[in-house]
Amino acid sequence: MSTDGLFAPIFTGDELLQATGDRAWLQALLDVEGALAGAEADTGIIPKPAAEIITTFCTGAGATDRFDSGQLGRAARLGGNPVIPLVETLTAVLPPEARGWVHWGATSQDILDTAAMLLCRRALEIIEADLDGLADGCAALADRYRTTLMAGRTLLQQALPITFGLKAAGWLIGTLEVRGRLVEVRSVLPIQLGGAAGTLAALGPDGPAVASRLASRLQLVEPLIPWHTSRQRVAELGATLGLVAGHAANIATDVALLMQTEVAEAFEPAGPGRGGSSTLPHKRNPVAAAATSAAARRAHALIPVLFTGMVQEHERAVGGWQAEWETLTELLRLAGGAAGRVRETVQGLEVDPNAMRDNLDRTDGLLMAERVTLALARHMDRSEARKGVQRAARSGTSFRTGLLADPAITSVLSADEVDRLLDPAGYLGATSTFIDRALQAHRGG
Amino acid sequence: MSTDGLFAPIFTGDELLQATGDRAWLQALLDVEGALAGAEADTGIIPKPAAEIITTFCTGAGATDRFDSGQLGRAARLGGNPVIPLVETLTAVLPPEARGWVHWGATSQDILDTAAMLLCRRALEIIEADLDGLADGCAALADRYRTTLMAGRTLLQQALPITFGLKAAGWLIGTLEVRGRLVEVRSVLPIQLGGAAGTLAALGPDGPAVASRLASRLQLVEPLIPWHTSRQRVAELGATLGLVAGHAANIATDVALLMQTEVAEAFEPAGPGRGGSSTLPHKRNPVAAAATSAAARRAHALIPVLFTGMVQEHERAVGGWQAEWETLTELLRLAGGAAGRVRETVQGLEVDPNAMRDNLDRTDGLLMAERVTLALARHMDRSEARKGVQRAARSGTSFRTGLLADPAITSVLSADEVDRLLDPAGYLGATSTFIDRALQAHRGG
Amino acid sequence: MSTDGLFAPIFTGDELLQATGDRAWLQALLDVEGALAGAEADTGIIPKPAAEIITTFCTGAGATDRFDSGQLGRAARLGGNPVIPLVETLTAVLPPEARGWVHWGATSQDILDTAAMLLCRRALEIIEADLDGLADGCAALADRYRTTLMAGRTLLQQALPITFGLKAAGWLIGTLEVRGRLVEVRSVLPIQLGGAAGTLAALGPDGPAVASRLASRLQLVEPLIPWHTSRQRVAELGATLGLVAGHAANIATDVALLMQTEVAEAFEPAGPGRGGSSTLPHKRNPVAAAATSAAARRAHALIPVLFTGMVQEHERAVGGWQAEWETLTELLRLAGGAAGRVRETVQGLEVDPNAMRDNLDRTDGLLMAERVTLALARHMDRSEARKGVQRAARSGTSFRTGLLADPAITSVLSADEVDRLLDPAGYLGATSTFIDRALQAHRGG
Amino acid sequence: MSTDGLFAPIFTGDELLQATGDRAWLQALLDVEGALAGAEADTGIIPKPAAEIITTFCTGAGATDRFDSGQLGRAARLGGNPVIPLVETLTAVLPPEARGWVHWGATSQDILDTAAMLLCRRALEIIEADLDGLADGCAALADRYRTTLMAGRTLLQQALPITFGLKAAGWLIGTLEVRGRLVEVRSVLPIQLGGAAGTLAALGPDGPAVASRLASRLQLVEPLIPWHTSRQRVAELGATLGLVAGHAANIATDVALLMQTEVAEAFEPAGPGRGGSSTLPHKRNPVAAAATSAAARRAHALIPVLFTGMVQEHERAVGGWQAEWETLTELLRLAGGAAGRVRETVQGLEVDPNAMRDNLDRTDGLLMAERVTLALARHMDRSEARKGVQRAARSGTSFRTGLLADPAITSVLSADEVDRLLDPAGYLGATSTFIDRALQAHRGG
Repeated sequence: MSTDGLFAPIFTGDELLQATGDRAWLQALLDVEGALAGAEADTGIIPKPAAEIITTFCTGAGATDRFDSGQLGRAARLGGNPVIPLVETLTAVLPPEARGWVHWGATSQDILDTAAMLLCRRALEIIEADLDGLADGCAALADRYRTTLMAGRTLLQQALPITFGLKAAGWLIGTLEVRGRLVEVRSVLPIQLGGAAGTLAALGPDGPAVASRLASRLQLVEPLIPWHTSRQRVAELGATLGLVAGHAANIATDVALLMQTEVAEAFEPAGPGRGGSSTLPHKRNPVAAAATSAAARRAHALIPVLFTGMVQEHERAVGGWQAEWETLTELLRLAGGAAGRVRETVQGLEVDPNAMRDNLDRTDGLLMAERVTLALARHMDRSEARKGVQRAARSGTSFRTGLLADPAITSVLSADEVDRLLDPAGYLGATSTFIDRALQAHRGG
Repeated sequence: MSTDGLFAPIFTGDELLQATGDRAWLQALLDVEGALAGAEADTGIIPKPAAEIITTFCTGAGATDRFDSGQLGRAARLGGNPVIPLVETLTAVLPPEARGWVHWGATSQDILDTAAMLLCRRALEIIEADLDGLADGCAALADRYRTTLMAGRTLLQQALPITFGLKAAGWLIGTLEVRGRLVEVRSVLPIQLGGAAGTLAALGPDGPAVASRLASRLQLVEPLIPWHTSRQRVAELGATLGLVAGHAANIATDVALLMQTEVAEAFEPAGPGRGGSSTLPHKRNPVAAAATSAAARRAHALIPVLFTGMVQEHERAVGGWQAEWETLTELLRLAGGAAGRVRETVQGLEVDPNAMRDNLDRTDGLLMAERVTLALARHMDRSEARKGVQRAARSGTSFRTGLLADPAITSVLSADEVDRLLDPAGYLGATSTFIDRALQAHRGG
Repeated sequence: MSTDGLFAPIFTGDELLQATGDRAWLQALLDVEGALAGAEADTGIIPKPAAEIITTFCTGAGATDRFDSGQLGRAARLGGNPVIPLVETLTAVLPPEARGWVHWGATSQDILDTAAMLLCRRALEIIEADLDGLADGCAALADRYRTTLMAGRTLLQQALPITFGLKAAGWLIGTLEVRGRLVEVRSVLPIQLGGAAGTLAALGPDGPAVASRLASRLQLVEPLIPWHTSRQRVAELGATLGLVAGHAANIATDVALLMQTEVAEAFEPAGPGRGGSSTLPHKRNPVAAAATSAAARRAHALIPVLFTGMVQEHERAVGGWQAEWETLTELLRLAGGAAGRVRETVQGLEVDPNAMRDNLDRTDGLLMAERVTLALARHMDRSEARKGVQRAARSGTSFRTGLLADPAITSVLSADEVDRLLDPAGYLGATSTFIDRALQAHRGG
Repeated sequence: MSTDGLFAPIFTGDELLQATGDRAWLQALLDVEGALAGAEADTGIIPKPAAEIITTFCTGAGATDRFDSGQLGRAARLGGNPVIPLVETLTAVLPPEARGWVHWGATSQDILDTAAMLLCRRALEIIEADLDGLADGCAALADRYRTTLMAGRTLLQQALPITFGLKAAGWLIGTLEVRGRLVEVRSVLPIQLGGAAGTLAALGPDGPAVASRLASRLQLVEPLIPWHTSRQRVAELGATLGLVAGHAANIATDVALLMQTEVAEAFEPAGPGRGGSSTLPHKRNPVAAAATSAAARRAHALIPVLFTGMVQEHERAVGGWQAEWETLTELLRLAGGAAGRVRETVQGLEVDPNAMRDNLDRTDGLLMAERVTLALARHMDRSEARKGVQRAARSGTSFRTGLLADPAITSVLSADEVDRLLDPAGYLGATSTFIDRALQAHRGG
């Protein structure tokens, strides 16, 4: 089993690589030809025995073994897509009574588009499973670290205390939203059947009935009209995969930043050889984060190919359609791969609450400046309050000492009140509410 | 009134330019500050009189006149976003009793994100109106030209007959789908309120209540938790605008191709100076198509900015967030502009049914080759049928003459049957059904 | 020989597929390890006999046969790049006396970056050969059709006469410029050697000497300093491949437009099965154009991955670097594939001068309106001249008749003069000069 | 003076905003019309007095004051570009004897393309000045901090010691390379002059002479042939600006990472209000880094617009060309803005060598593991050496203690040797050489 060589496995898991590989594409194409023959027999357009032969041949075990995908790909140079040589080969190897009924009334794009939707549905199910696992992992973190204090950081600067549970709750909500959108998009993946110019003319009056049967056999949606040059579905699919990749990279980047030598608050799961450096034994590299980030960058760049591809000339495009095939494959692999790697990261995340607390304490209370300012502002003008806090912050001593040395401050706040104000655990606002909401959405989703 | 100079108006209409211009942004920011004060008064956090002063100041007539946007923009270099100097200015000009309560407990991102959603909602309503008009225009064409024959063209080659009504029905379904998605996205645009690190700590226990009131006052959705670093909404919004632009450019490109001197089947609406060339009086340039195509290219390129921007460091990003502001503005302008221009094109489209028929007849019946092949294939092997048709096609005479000169063909098809087969009006398959479905979807939408 | 399955061969020729496939990558990586050992022996850092064993093993026939690229790729998930497992495998299979000296003082990125440059050089040579062939093809067309009249078309509207030779001369100059840039970029491809953090510390004082020898052995350039996080070279390489793809698609699109049923002035080379449709025997599809356009769309989308990748954290990136590997491979394939397909198109282009002339005559002289306007403007105000021409253009008769029926015109132009002005062959301006310049640049290049 | 409102000034300096604003575009367009008239008078095509009137009008002080760019932009909707209404207005306001000679023989694209090149040249000069300042700033840092030890970090993990001077030397070389490319591209910016279809037919035999004079008058390059549909120059220009933006963001990102609360090794220059947060007085936000990163993201996304725009239909494009105008403007602003902000950052960078040293010491010698491994490997098998180092690294005590407690290690290394090996200053490899090379390249450049 060769799963796509030197680089692809770094970014994508084996299951998804196979679900989007040449064999999977071939099988999807054959599935469509088989289902088409079946649908046409259902509606009396072609003889049932012929259809049965075709369906059995196309969907039986080892169906793809009869084809050499590299040879089909090279043969496809002549006609511009692999369905043409596939149908030729299929016609050649079927028995005479079935031969003439293969691909009846269809155009290459019908087969390729429907196969693409089939392949996407299968791949999206794998990705959804990873998103489910990711959501579970986030929920577990949100729950477990609900009160674990850490620094909230804005623009990479410590800003205010949060809890690690809140951060995980944010990841969780994001996962649920992205997953919800993915399910929406998957559940409306349609067949395409229009014939040579979108009229289904070759099927006579029964075209719509065949389309309906084809959709039913493949468990895809029947569109109102053929969408050969109306590609919003494909663009939306691409965008949704972009959401998956972006969300995964968002989490991965936070983890990579938390793993920094100087921060060291959370770590990708360890394991033999994992994240190691050949010459630097002390390192713990965020290798999954790097792969996730790289996958997301590449996935996001591909999105415009599908949007620009919406511009299709007349009844079939010169380029915009042909650019979709490998782009979709890559997007499934990169987005799904990112989801898989970040699931693994979140589910095995090593969290160091002590390091979180130590880092939080590094600024010696300064992180509570906003709280002190607001407390002072109840007794004086807000700009006066801010000035007082700034004097204390720059006093050269600890923030607490600075505050307590300032008569303008001590005239309105006691030392006890100052100490209470400087306790980060008391300044978490709606943190707990937000975590509850996220966990409830997860349970309810 | 300066609407954005030399180039922008070519791609975007005046209404949308204004709804996304500096004044509109300023007003949206002020609307949020005003509504925030109101929401905080509603929940007893700040005094009602102060809130009323703030709200009145921010949302009263001419509120933006007190600000110089260029000056705010330059001042924003120091702190990195325009809310900081805006709040400073606001604080300075308000009466003392209100001054201290402006922007209470909020962070710049809260204001900017919520204002962006507000601005988007307003702009999306304009775009929806254009999509409605576009849908009406497509429906009118689909209905009127339901039986108007023309060549269906695949890979820019004539393939099979279709009707112009079918083409318009395809545009219509695309419009309805894109519009549907836009409405979905618009109707869930949320406020953002998280405070400095997403905990709403500065609002104490009442944070969620303030958020709820803020959403209600602005008629935006209250999110489960703050989304300061969870940007899938913004990316989805961008993708949806990309759908609008792509769909518009798809129609525009077809029109430009139909306007070609050698095709001349349909034209953008005429008018004094419209599409003209200073030195070439005979030309009828597809100027709206060019603008639409250009706008779509630019819009599509911007989409990855919003997806890549999903990767945000910790509790506020260093770059990913800041890149959204002008990108969103541009996407609204370009996608909406494309919708506006193509609406105008479709609503005023000049169609020449005679030219359509003349072009259809250019290949002298060859376009019916598939139909003749299928008819022959009922009497002989499909490959034999195809060979017979090819012989006739290459006979050097007209296709009809070639067919009638071939005994293998005439032995199974009479001259009358051949003539019937060569009539394009009889080979339209499900065209009428598809048009009905599209028109029904439009009425039902 | 499996050359990359169902889709890749449609867009890329076999030679380039192989030069950029897994074997080629593996061989390039081994070439670098071999050359590194050699360079280190040259400078006395490792023992010569060990180096010889390594070099022989890595660069001997069938070196790559000892590795399973899929297995290396999966193993690479742990450490994040394929060099780590490659070096492990290499160490395991080498005899003991060589084992310890493999990869001495290098970091994975050194090997991968240098291998990438090696692979690029080899692939670029293939692409250059295609560009040379393309330039020859363009030059032949420019020369042969130097005076073959056709319509110059702006915004898809006939505008003024040109010759097909001039169009080909434009393609030629574009080819020469793109090729020139490609050669510039190829000739400065550098090695990368910096060690774990870019200091070459592990090589002691001899680091720069090793770098110099490594460059010399691989016939790559020695950079002033390591460029592990300074990726402008990679971005420039990507941009240059984007130029190749864009130029190829520019020609291909013109050909596809010229092949339209209604235009029919030039055609991709014919051949059995080529461009055919299974059911529409009369079609002649621009399949190479579609593949070229699709390849260019995909190539262009990938460019930002390499530019965004320039942003690399500290001394090695978390994502930006890792995103380069497959992106570069794809860019080479897509850009080179586009060049290959368009070379084939141009070298075998079928031109129909009669169709060009017929189309030119379709507007019945109107194309010469600018010339008549300018001629009239020598006798009257320019706006008067333009109005006269417009009257004639819209007279309902032929343009010539319209002109000769207008006393304002006949008072300054005789019928003979009008006929002379309406001859397109006389209104070609600098066409011949431009063709000469292009051909001379080609000979001189 | 309104410099582009709320957002643009955050990303771009005032000088560059003005050099790329509407007035600048208008002036460039007028400069070209003026120079064209001059060039045509030089070659005897139009009367010298008329040309003088035109040139004086177009290039005199306050020339642009006579035009309302918003009005021109709205008028441009009809014809698709702003040159058409500009020429109309120009014609209307010039005295009768000059009126007829404006824009003689040119097409809108000639004027717009040439004006774009003119505008680019002026803007590129501003950007080059910023790159020069950036190079000087980097050189000063490289020199001053040549021996200032800090941790080299790979994948955000401390890896090996480097010096801050080496990091700055890397920035310097990158700056010089990017600047070099920018100068190359700027110095070949061409005029465009082809007339309505690229033949210069309206200029008769003198077309090439006019082109030559026009180039000379505008100090732009005369191309071999018109490049109206051969856009590699524009794409290359865009790519080069992408290099500028990417390089700037590379430096900015390093600075933002160094500014992290937990790292705190270097800082953007301070100043009143600079990088501050309204409520968090202790923060020091990397506001310039955020703006630079945002600008680079947006710039990079725009690049494909120019590459895809290379695909232009026949003799003038329907969309690809029109998409260039604002894209070029934005690219100049964003790339140049990024260069300007990073120049400011580097020139005012606050460096804390003590913090660098403290962070370097955090891992308690572990950073020297590679060095110890290599030293041990001179006495034992490399894998044995690595194991010994790993034992010491994980001994639970300090690395030094761990090493000295291991007989396998102390049998070959004395305590003094261990101490020497653990001194980071002794393990800098070619650092000094690399810094010298960079400084020399800077002096020599």
